[in-house]
Amino acid sequence: MKLKQLLTLTAAISIAQFTFSQNSSSPVVEDFKPSSVNQIGKQYPQVNSEGRVRVQISAPEAKQVQLDIGAVKYNLVKNDTGVWIGESAPQDEGFHYYQLNIDGASVPDPGSLYFYGASRWGSGIEIPAKDQEFYALKNVPHGQVREINYFSKTNNSMRHCFVYTPADYDKDTQKRYPVLYLQHGGGENEYGWANQGRANLILDNLIAEGKAKPFIIVMDNGTWRMPEGTRRPAPQGGRPAGQWPPKGWADGFMKTLLDDIIPMVDANYRTIADPQHRAMAGLSMGGMQTRVITLANPDKFSYVGMFSGGSISTEDLKEAPGFKEKVKLVFISYGSRELENRRPGFGGDPKADTEALKQAGMNTQFYVSPLTAHEWQSWRRSLYQFAPLLFK
Amino acid sequence: MKLKQLLTLTAAISIAQFTFSQNSSSPVVEDFKPSSVNQIGKQYPQVNSEGRVRVQISAPEAKQVQLDIGAVKYNLVKNDTGVWIGESAPQDEGFHYYQLNIDGASVPDPGSLYFYGASRWGSGIEIPAKDQEFYALKNVPHGQVREINYFSKTNNSMRHCFVYTPADYDKDTQKRYPVLYLQHGGGENEYGWANQGRANLILDNLIAEGKAKPFIIVMDNGTWRMPEGTRRPAPQGGRPAGQWPPKGWADGFMKTLLDDIIPMVDANYRTIADPQHRAMAGLSMGGMQTRVITLANPDKFSYVGMFSGGSISTEDLKEAPGFKEKVKLVFISYGSRELENRRPGFGGDPKADTEALKQAGMNTQFYVSPLTAHEWQSWRRSLYQFAPLLFK
Repeated sequence: MKLKQLLTLTAAISIAQFTFSQNSSSPVVEDFKPSSVNQIGKQYPQVNSEGRVRVQISAPEAKQVQLDIGAVKYNLVKNDTGVWIGESAPQDEGFHYYQLNIDGASVPDPGSLYFYGASRWGSGIEIPAKDQEFYALKNVPHGQVREINYFSKTNNSMRHCFVYTPADYDKDTQKRYPVLYLQHGGGENEYGWANQGRANLILDNLIAEGKAKPFIIVMDNGTWRMPEGTRRPAPQGGRPAGQWPPKGWADGFMKTLLDDIIPMVDANYRTIADPQHRAMAGLSMGGMQTRVITLANPDKFSYVGMFSGGSISTEDLKEAPGFKEKVKLVFISYGSRELENRRPGFGGDPKADTEALKQAGMNTQFYVSPLTAHEWQSWRRSLYQFAPLLFK
Repeated sequence: MKLKQLLTLTAAISIAQFTFSQNSSSPVVEDFKPSSVNQIGKQYPQVNSEGRVRVQISAPEAKQVQLDIGAVKYNLVKNDTGVWIGESAPQDEGFHYYQLNIDGASVPDPGSLYFYGASRWGSGIEIPAKDQEFYALKNVPHGQVREINYFSKTNNSMRHCFVYTPADYDKDTQKRYPVLYLQHGGGENEYGWANQGRANLILDNLIAEGKAKPFIIVMDNGTWRMPEGTRRPAPQGGRPAGQWPPKGWADGFMKTLLDDIIPMVDANYRTIADPQHRAMAGLSMGGMQTRVITLANPDKFSYVGMFSGGSISTEDLKEAPGFKEKVKLVFISYGSRELENRRPGFGGDPKADTEALKQAGMNTQFYVSPLTAHEWQSWRRSLYQFAPLLFK
């Protein structure tokens, strides 16, 4: 590196100290701080101002230890006390799942809190975001997240969900509230929205600022498994394969939602139990479930939110009588990086579809989360945009 | 092994298949089943009818992998696909924390659910107990476990707790309820009682059978740190050291409980806010806190439970005016294995202390959990014994 380059670089990074990473030739800014979702008292993992994640773990006898984040594996380096340390490339703002790999074993990082995603409880990290205030824990009136065990006749088994009640729910026991049914994505579960999604804090803050009406949020488990033996059809000679997921894939959760969850909630909470005060939204697979279930039941839901989970086209309206007339809002959102790298399988062009719905006379909103991918920061922001539009 | 011995052994284990463990010369009964607290879809860890724990993990490049449970490390054996497998000696009935060790790195088992204990979120396993029905999830009316964020003036910060409300709490909004303040042990937190402790299910079942009156349970975080620089005094020439923990150690949590937690609960829940309808109990450190706090405040609590956390002597009564007259129950319990191997630091003989209190005219109960140690099965059983005695 020439002196002039070095001086420019030094000026650019101001007074920050930096080192060079094992994994890249670019300098690493040495301003790492413990992640906000570390276990109490744990100094690692850490995050710096570039959004790099640095982990460390004692594994004196290991041959190789890696940090696995954002579908990239970064080699750690062992120091003379047997502690492995290293960092990732800069990550997008917001929440990410990650894991460690120790001599071929994929394990959670003992320093982080654990979150359910990718079909497992595993490590998560929080890259501080410029807009993190909207989901921060503040000294405002707080609602409650209630853990519910209930019996499902449809499934003939006990089920488990979380119900958010807004801060004033227990103050006036005559008041009744609208309800949002809010679904997680594939490989996630009913814990996601109130843990990494921070749905309760987002609503607490919006309600405290008078930006959203108080409402109840129901977060249940929409996990759905293809019947055994079902296979995704292969594309034939360059033509796209048949419909995927196959017709009927959401019927199981639809039945549970309509016959078990909604009646249980209306019987046990002070809801306004009519379609004008019932919304459904979800992320990814949960958005796809929202699409199928609300198109089939426009007499039951008035507000529809699909976060990174497809769109609704004017073609869909033809097969969903009443949807156009009864539904008061169709909200479609994506992370900007998803639109850059269009994910297959979610149907047409979501922005064009949504614009066409608006032209057809429906109330729609299309939101793009800046510089985020198919991840929780996109969905936190989507809920933050969606909630103020509900039940007006 | 002689033929006669072998035949006797074969008869003894009946038709069960068995293998010989890497870790002992005794046979291992091959009737392992996935643990009931595994992550969904995970086949390992497993438990057999002897209470052995078998784990497996893929770690093709590792040199040594161990199962660390009950303060013993068991070596696993690698098969030809790079998967390590092995089992522990038989464990006591109930819940145990454990971890894996991969080439010197202590990590959670990716197959188990995670629980907070030993000052970390880590793996847990459930050895089926003969009396497990009392904490099983059944189709009975269920209460709710509510997650609460609240502002603490005493600490000038947000705090976090769980509140159990019994099944009928939301049915009749005029009815008011007694409250039990229920504390975790050292290295644990506010999650313990409703996760591995199953306090909510224990109460749901007791209430459904009419064996306990419905009451509210508050589970907050009593974690307490010694001021920096404080050291435990060393024993001098064979004589015991000075008092430990030192006088005043529970003052911090006592202030938080009396000035923040109880007022917050009485303001936000339909409590009967008088001392006759307020109980305090805790396990281990939480029992020691219960002792100090209730002795100092007999005008605030009427029921006292200490689970594996010491006892109250007639000497204590002399320094606690009003305690003998006002407190309606002192409940002391231990696991039988704790009494066999008396743990130091918990004061005198708990059984003799409790008998002396009874002789002095107090209502006491002394309970011993059969064949369990300083672990959650002792404390689940203690709560099951204690709850029916409250608020009668």
